[in-house]
Amino acid sequence: MSGRVAGKVEGPDYRVFPGSPVRLAEIDPNETEGYTRKKEVLPELESLRKRIRRLHEKLYAENKRGLLIVLQAMDTGGKDGTIKHVFTEVNPQGCRVSSFKAPSAEERNHDFLWRYHKSAPAVGRIGIFNRSHYEDVLVVRVKNLVPEEVWRPRYRMIRDFEWTLTHNRISVLKFYLHISKDEQKRRLQSRLDDPDKRWKFSKNDLAERERWDSYQEAFEEAINETSTEHAPWHVVPANKKWYRNLVVARAIAGALERLDPKFPPAEEGLDSVVIPD
Amino acid sequence: MSGRVAGKVEGPDYRVFPGSPVRLAEIDPNETEGYTRKKEVLPELESLRKRIRRLHEKLYAENKRGLLIVLQAMDTGGKDGTIKHVFTEVNPQGCRVSSFKAPSAEERNHDFLWRYHKSAPAVGRIGIFNRSHYEDVLVVRVKNLVPEEVWRPRYRMIRDFEWTLTHNRISVLKFYLHISKDEQKRRLQSRLDDPDKRWKFSKNDLAERERWDSYQEAFEEAINETSTEHAPWHVVPANKKWYRNLVVARAIAGALERLDPKFPPAEEGLDSVVIPD
Repeated sequence: MSGRVAGKVEGPDYRVFPGSPVRLAEIDPNETEGYTRKKEVLPELESLRKRIRRLHEKLYAENKRGLLIVLQAMDTGGKDGTIKHVFTEVNPQGCRVSSFKAPSAEERNHDFLWRYHKSAPAVGRIGIFNRSHYEDVLVVRVKNLVPEEVWRPRYRMIRDFEWTLTHNRISVLKFYLHISKDEQKRRLQSRLDDPDKRWKFSKNDLAERERWDSYQEAFEEAINETSTEHAPWHVVPANKKWYRNLVVARAIAGALERLDPKFPPAEEGLDSVVIPD
Repeated sequence: MSGRVAGKVEGPDYRVFPGSPVRLAEIDPNETEGYTRKKEVLPELESLRKRIRRLHEKLYAENKRGLLIVLQAMDTGGKDGTIKHVFTEVNPQGCRVSSFKAPSAEERNHDFLWRYHKSAPAVGRIGIFNRSHYEDVLVVRVKNLVPEEVWRPRYRMIRDFEWTLTHNRISVLKFYLHISKDEQKRRLQSRLDDPDKRWKFSKNDLAERERWDSYQEAFEEAINETSTEHAPWHVVPANKKWYRNLVVARAIAGALERLDPKFPPAEEGLDSVVIPD
């Protein structure tokens, strides 16, 4: 995969960099580094969760830098599951998930980035976008909700927005969870078959599935147009949920380690302090 | 303790109800039901965390009722620690912590409830207030930031606000974490003594400690004035952190069990669905 550059995290680097565009059809969603079973990776995942938890505690105390995590995928691609499995041990104080549905009437009266900017994390925080400003070049394009002369300039607006965040102390990590069309069928079928999951199934999912190729095309272009040095996409092989969790957790732990947050220094003059009864 | 009423949760009921006011000086912050060591309660706490996690998952899926948790305490009383230990296994998707500091210039230009109302949870969510609208009858009163004719009518405004939330599908659970003045001294001293915690110590903590009695008086009146049938306070013995966590976790699990959230029903007509390749 031409777009990969060696990083500091262990394991393969799934980042996409400008000048090395990817073709999604050439990236294997089944890749697992040779691991064959979930239990082989669980110890590493557990240790990564603990590292993320410890680093987040320091990020919060330091209160100087923040992290925005963007999760995008085809339907059933695993955005919810990734949040649940990677972030479940993180202290909810200082970690906020924002899910974006169709915009409200008020939101539609503003520029498309307005509602995402409002939800961007502050310093000291991790913000997770479950869907994001990328929907405005994905579903909007596939369903012709706005004409190309409206959505195409958004690539630049998105690059600029993320550059602004990055240069204002908020690192941006973007993950495309890459599943195959066959795997989506299996996941939809299991929602239909399992009485406990059936409530998650919507007939609308089938209409979206018919647009699979258009969505793939839109994702591929969005990923290539908005992978920048400061905010590259990660294309995560996601047919195996446990491998997807591992790859995302590694990238987040790695990003936090590069930030290297520190507990703040103590106030001056505490040595002489006596606490009265 | 006259204000206690038997509830459905296991263990003593620390709720305060109207008509049975409490005197904080008569409530023992060291109470532990006879437990003497943390490890005696850890299995129950772990099981409560799992119950909260499962019930929260259903609350989120159901998307019909929400829960607002208010945490208040004297400095070092354990608000942050309670969030960390009780909520750490909860999925951050659908659980949001709001911490309130001194109001901004914009917030000061609105009524005092404005910023809290904006942060109230939606249905399907748990919202946690780390400090809350109660600061506007606590610190504001103790430090004479506004005159009594301004802060006293706020008791009624708070009761009305919480009644409105409760009758709009958001249950309100309020916890006062009750520590002794001696215990606060120990906790401040351990922040001074431990190099890893020293950054948490502020000389301003000592000025606040001098106002201990005024704060106790303000808390006691606020608890008695705003304990209602729909939103009673819990006065939680909190000198032992592990017992405090247990009491809070029991109350939250109990409240969620009374809500008894359900996964939503499946769409009609799914039996005939065939997923195309």
